[in-house]
Amino acid sequence: MRQANSVTETQASAQTPPLVLTALPGLPLIRPGDDLGALILAGLAAAAIKLRSGDVIAVAQKIVSKAEGRQVRLAEVTPSARALELAEVTQKDPRFIEVVLSESKEVLRARFNTLIVEHRLGFVCANAGVDRSNVGPHGAGQEEYLLCLPADPDATCRRLRETFRAATGAEVGVLINDSHGRAWRNGTVGVAIGVAGLPALLDMRGHSDLFDYTLQVTQVGLADELAAAASVLMGQADERRPVIHIRGVPYPLREGNLQELIRPRELDLFR
Amino acid sequence: MRQANSVTETQASAQTPPLVLTALPGLPLIRPGDDLGALILAGLAAAAIKLRSGDVIAVAQKIVSKAEGRQVRLAEVTPSARALELAEVTQKDPRFIEVVLSESKEVLRARFNTLIVEHRLGFVCANAGVDRSNVGPHGAGQEEYLLCLPADPDATCRRLRETFRAATGAEVGVLINDSHGRAWRNGTVGVAIGVAGLPALLDMRGHSDLFDYTLQVTQVGLADELAAAASVLMGQADERRPVIHIRGVPYPLREGNLQELIRPRELDLFR
Repeated sequence: MRQANSVTETQASAQTPPLVLTALPGLPLIRPGDDLGALILAGLAAAAIKLRSGDVIAVAQKIVSKAEGRQVRLAEVTPSARALELAEVTQKDPRFIEVVLSESKEVLRARFNTLIVEHRLGFVCANAGVDRSNVGPHGAGQEEYLLCLPADPDATCRRLRETFRAATGAEVGVLINDSHGRAWRNGTVGVAIGVAGLPALLDMRGHSDLFDYTLQVTQVGLADELAAAASVLMGQADERRPVIHIRGVPYPLREGNLQELIRPRELDLFR
Repeated sequence: MRQANSVTETQASAQTPPLVLTALPGLPLIRPGDDLGALILAGLAAAAIKLRSGDVIAVAQKIVSKAEGRQVRLAEVTPSARALELAEVTQKDPRFIEVVLSESKEVLRARFNTLIVEHRLGFVCANAGVDRSNVGPHGAGQEEYLLCLPADPDATCRRLRETFRAATGAEVGVLINDSHGRAWRNGTVGVAIGVAGLPALLDMRGHSDLFDYTLQVTQVGLADELAAAASVLMGQADERRPVIHIRGVPYPLREGNLQELIRPRELDLFR
C-alpha cells in the first residue's frame, strides 16, 4: 500500500459511485475470546457481500471490548482517595471513577455528571469510554460490570485487516468506532478510536479549489466521518448492528492510525 | 409529521436496509439568484433518483451561500479597531477579520492562525465559517471575495423541503453541511448548519439497551452524523459534488432544526 500522498489521495473522481453502508446481519452476542474476524466474515457471507479492495469495515467498540475481555466487575474495585474526591464533584460511583482514572492520563474537566479525561490512548473523551452494563462477560447478569475500551484498538484493526486479507485477498480498511460528545454541540457522534489500512486524516495541503485558490481547510478527519456514517446504522444500542460494511469511499486507501487524529497538546484548543 | 417522540424514533428495525449516499451529477457552478431547488431536482433526474419520503438531501454550504448572494468584496471592507487588534494576534487579514466579527456574537479564542467564534447562529466554529475565494459572484475572478454562511440556513432547508414536496409529493429531510474543526481532534468533519424535516438530535432518554440497562448516552447528533457521511462524498473542494442524496436513514423523520444541536452556554465545556 502507498503511504500518505496528498496529491493523489485527494483527487476523488468526478463521477463518484455511491457510498453504500450495510449492517451485517446475524452476529451473535459477543463473549470474551470470540473470534471477531471469523464472525464478521460469516456476517459478510450472510449479507452476500464479497469483500473488495477499498472497502472499509466499521466495528462497534463494545463488541471489540467484549471479545477482548475488557470487563471489570464493579464489586471488585476499590476506589482511591482521588476517585472518592472526584465522585463527590461529579456525583458518580467512586468505583466507576477509579476505573476511569486507571484508563486515563489526565482529568480535564470534572463537574456534576461530567468527567472529561485524556484517555491513555491520547484522545479526549467522557469517562475514558468506560461503559456500565449489568451483563457479565459470560451471559445473563445480576452484578454490575464495567466495560473498558480495547487495549490497543489500532492493533485490533490491523489483525482484522490481516484476517480479511488472508480469507479474501482484499485490501480493506478497518476502523473501530465509538460515540463521543463534543465540546460545543449537543449529541454524540461516531468517531474512530482505532484505524488500519485507511487514511485517518486526509491531507489536502497544497491543494487548490476549482478556481486555483489554495484550500484553507487542509486536513479532513476521514476515519471520523466514516465512523459517524456507520454510527447512523449501528444505532445507539450498538450491539444490534455492530458491524457495518462500507463500499465506495472515494479515496485510495493507505496505511493509517489513530494517532493522525489526535491533536498535539500544544494545539489543543481546550486546554 | 410527528413531533419528537423518543420512544418510536429510536426503534430502528432489526433488518435495516443499507444507507446509500449518491452525489448528484451535473450541477452547474452556482451564482447569486440561482434556483437551487430546481437545480437539485434536475440533478436528481439526471441521477435517475425518484425522491421518496424518508430520503434526506444534504447541500454544501458553499453553494447555498453563493445562490443567496452572500459574497463580500474584500476591497470594500474597512476594518474596525477591534479587527486590527485581532489581525495582529492571528496574523490574518484585518478586512477578513472584520467580516468574521460581523458574523459573530463573541470571539472565544484568538491565537496565531486561529480565530474561534460563536457564530450569530449560535454554534462555535473557526472564522465564523467565512471562506475566501478569488471568484466574484458573477464569474471569473481577479479580485478577492469573501463568502459568508447563509443568512438563515434552517429557513433555506425548509424552503427546499417545500419545493421537493411540491414537485414530488415526498416528505424529505434537508440539511446544509459545512466542515468544522474539533477542539481535541485533528481534521475537519462535516456538520449540519441548517436542518429541516429531520431530527437534528435523536433523543434516546428512557431507552434501555439489549439488557434493559438504561443507556448512558442519551442524545445522538443524527444530522451531524449524516452531514459527516455526506462530506465523505462531497470532498473538500465541495463545489464538485455539492449535493448528496441519502436513502435508508433508519429513523422516522420529523420536524427538526439547528437549535437542537447547539449546546446551551451554561453546559458548554469550552467556555
